Amino acid sequence: MSDDRNKILEETIKRLLRRGAVTNLRKIINKTHAADLSLVFRNLSVTSQRKLYDMIEDQEQKAVLLSELSEYTFTDLIETFEVDELLEVFQFMPSDDVADIIADLPKEKADAVLEKMNNEESEEVEDLLSYDDDTAGGIMVPDFVALDEDIAARDAIESLQKDYPDVEMPFYLYVVDDHERLVGVVSLRQLVVVKPCTPLKEFMTTDIFSVRTDMDQEEVAKLVARYDILAVPVVDDNNRLMGIVTVDDVIDIFRQEATEDILKMAGVGDEFVETQSVVSSTRTRIPWLFASCIGGIVAFFIIGHFEISLRKVAYLAAFIPVIMGMGGNVGIQSSTIVVRGLATGRLVANDLWAVVGKELSIGLILGLFYGGLIGFVAHLRFGDAHSSAMLATSVGLAVLSSMSIAALMGSLVPMIFGRINIDPAVATGPFVTTSVDIVSVYFYFRIASYLLGL
Amino acid sequence: MSDDRNKILEETIKRLLRRGAVTNLRKIINKTHAADLSLVFRNLSVTSQRKLYDMIEDQEQKAVLLSELSEYTFTDLIETFEVDELLEVFQFMPSDDVADIIADLPKEKADAVLEKMNNEESEEVEDLLSYDDDTAGGIMVPDFVALDEDIAARDAIESLQKDYPDVEMPFYLYVVDDHERLVGVVSLRQLVVVKPCTPLKEFMTTDIFSVRTDMDQEEVAKLVARYDILAVPVVDDNNRLMGIVTVDDVIDIFRQEATEDILKMAGVGDEFVETQSVVSSTRTRIPWLFASCIGGIVAFFIIGHFEISLRKVAYLAAFIPVIMGMGGNVGIQSSTIVVRGLATGRLVANDLWAVVGKELSIGLILGLFYGGLIGFVAHLRFGDAHSSAMLATSVGLAVLSSMSIAALMGSLVPMIFGRINIDPAVATGPFVTTSVDIVSVYFYFRIASYLLGL
Repeated sequence: MSDDRNKILEETIKRLLRRGAVTNLRKIINKTHAADLSLVFRNLSVTSQRKLYDMIEDQEQKAVLLSELSEYTFTDLIETFEVDELLEVFQFMPSDDVADIIADLPKEKADAVLEKMNNEESEEVEDLLSYDDDTAGGIMVPDFVALDEDIAARDAIESLQKDYPDVEMPFYLYVVDDHERLVGVVSLRQLVVVKPCTPLKEFMTTDIFSVRTDMDQEEVAKLVARYDILAVPVVDDNNRLMGIVTVDDVIDIFRQEATEDILKMAGVGDEFVETQSVVSSTRTRIPWLFASCIGGIVAFFIIGHFEISLRKVAYLAAFIPVIMGMGGNVGIQSSTIVVRGLATGRLVANDLWAVVGKELSIGLILGLFYGGLIGFVAHLRFGDAHSSAMLATSVGLAVLSSMSIAALMGSLVPMIFGRINIDPAVATGPFVTTSVDIVSVYFYFRIASYLLGL
Repeated sequence: MSDDRNKILEETIKRLLRRGAVTNLRKIINKTHAADLSLVFRNLSVTSQRKLYDMIEDQEQKAVLLSELSEYTFTDLIETFEVDELLEVFQFMPSDDVADIIADLPKEKADAVLEKMNNEESEEVEDLLSYDDDTAGGIMVPDFVALDEDIAARDAIESLQKDYPDVEMPFYLYVVDDHERLVGVVSLRQLVVVKPCTPLKEFMTTDIFSVRTDMDQEEVAKLVARYDILAVPVVDDNNRLMGIVTVDDVIDIFRQEATEDILKMAGVGDEFVETQSVVSSTRTRIPWLFASCIGGIVAFFIIGHFEISLRKVAYLAAFIPVIMGMGGNVGIQSSTIVVRGLATGRLVANDLWAVVGKELSIGLILGLFYGGLIGFVAHLRFGDAHSSAMLATSVGLAVLSSMSIAALMGSLVPMIFGRINIDPAVATGPFVTTSVDIVSVYFYFRIASYLLGL
């Protein structure tokens, strides 16, 4: 459904809610895909959410809706659920989503739910809860097919039908040995094509990727993308198959990581804040602006230090914006390229000097070009005045130094952060912008005071 | 393979190339996954690329390598290929990748290749070439399974083995009517589970998503992500099945779009430039900086206009950096939230006033906070001076107005661009930053001149 159609759906549902048109609401709710409903739910009050949820007739649709919502904050809605109600809908949800929801519940409720689950299920969920959220273990699902390497193709098909009625779309059929260790993979297609009596180990593919439960989710996602696979098996330290990470989760990881990077670079937290209230959104943004505020105050004292020069040549002040602006923008360009390059794997943190050297060259070339241009404009403006040439030269040199320093800092800071394993996206905004501002202003006044003999 | 191990691989290959250690190179090349090789290839000269490529023994690995490389610029390597050589490796490549490579060839070579292909293949490729690159038609693959709705499950399995030996991993088995129109979908699992004599139309799922050939690739990607499907069928105007877009291509689209957005916002083009030379990279960045340069020069004339005020109170200049900096940063925050919100579908362009209103409120609150803070610092610094209170008030008000205007422009500009279907990411950088700078400086000097009676 396109964004426009979703907007119409949302408007319609809101209108019907206001009117209390229950019959119409029920009709719409039950024929809309849960993924579309979840978009509408995000913009409704808890009361409305609860009302609509109760209108859904199909338990499975309820489960899909909750799974979709679980990516966003919907703790308020979940709090309205009784323990039994949760247990009922959990039966229709993949256990990784169940674990996600239970992790967000208040302690007592979570314990109550786990207690009432049947043993097998609660063990599965508790296993998942024991892994870190951002690791392969935290995002894997335990719904995979594991077949014994010694059974025949015919028996494998039978086992599929009998033992795995829940695994709707088996991506790959994994083959394990007597100790549940992952030894190979076969496709449904192969099972159907080979002679029925062939044992799996004779035709399985043994060259198989797997990841450990503690691998970072971003690494897992990169692997899946690089090798174009639909699912990657997750194994424990003894190579025993614990779960799979599927390609649809990988998509979510990439979108989430890209959004995080973008938001962090702009200093607006690492989760999407537009759904938050004005107050919490303001609170997220205040600290980052503080860095820039401190930087501005330092620049203030630097300029204050040159007050005498300024009194003599008041026009010096008029060039502050262009010098800061050019430096700031080149700095953003360089750091954006480096941060995104590191995130997508196109740059490697070990290439530090090659990358920084290239950015610095670009900064120098751009600085020469714009330094010349802006110096020339200054010269035109003050052509008749005393020491116009020196003023123009000062401004040109200031632009040149500001832009080269910005390119240097903009690439060096995130590269170094990347190397010592601190998220480069966090570093970029505050450090780079603020320090470029300060250094640019200082160099400008130093150069001008010297050249103009102030 | 992790990034570190890839780096080691690259170093090793480069060292062996320098030494001319052919035997070792051949061994390494033939045991490394083509996806990993492609990363190394990107940092090698054409001569080395060609040398290594020729060492690959398996045609299929050659094909995978070229497919992987085709996402990046590798026209130099392709130019070393003879027509026959291309034809040979094309046999092992999916036809969408073949079409991508042919699209990049010089006209005569492309024609020569198409001419020498067998009819069926060249028609397939020419069909693909006729679609716009960024549409469903441009990214679909024609390798799908289409079964007649009237045949029985047993015959469908047989047909799979006989007619579709090339379709390695059938995501879904599509069902078509006599006119090749898409009517449903069945899973391999269903085929195996139902009674062998049941006709497909009796158990197929008829509730099926499909997209038109001309749908934008980003829309297609969003659909696949929203509904967690592995592949979406692409149909023409008559609902005839033309191809499928698979989930692995969707991952590439999302990564590519996120990178494009990030780069465009920083004004560094829309393709990754770090692999480009210093000169071409500089050329990409110059125009965007020009907007900021013009803005800086306008700010220069505005400040020049207030020269008399500046002569009287030279200290006014010292606050320019903090006022510009605070405004600029809030502007980047607001526009980042809006651009990314629109890209991920969390914000809708029609919500213009709600979004802008919220950002403006945040800008006002932040402006009050920081305006007060910075005004207070100004007051502390000039506590003893004449009209210190007025100076502090001017600075505070200037910060407040700069930050609110920045939040307003930062959200309004991309929202409007989104509404009139211009890419909001392009708008953000130049328009917002430059105009915020100009307006901030103007308001500051206006307010100060008035309050200080200059």
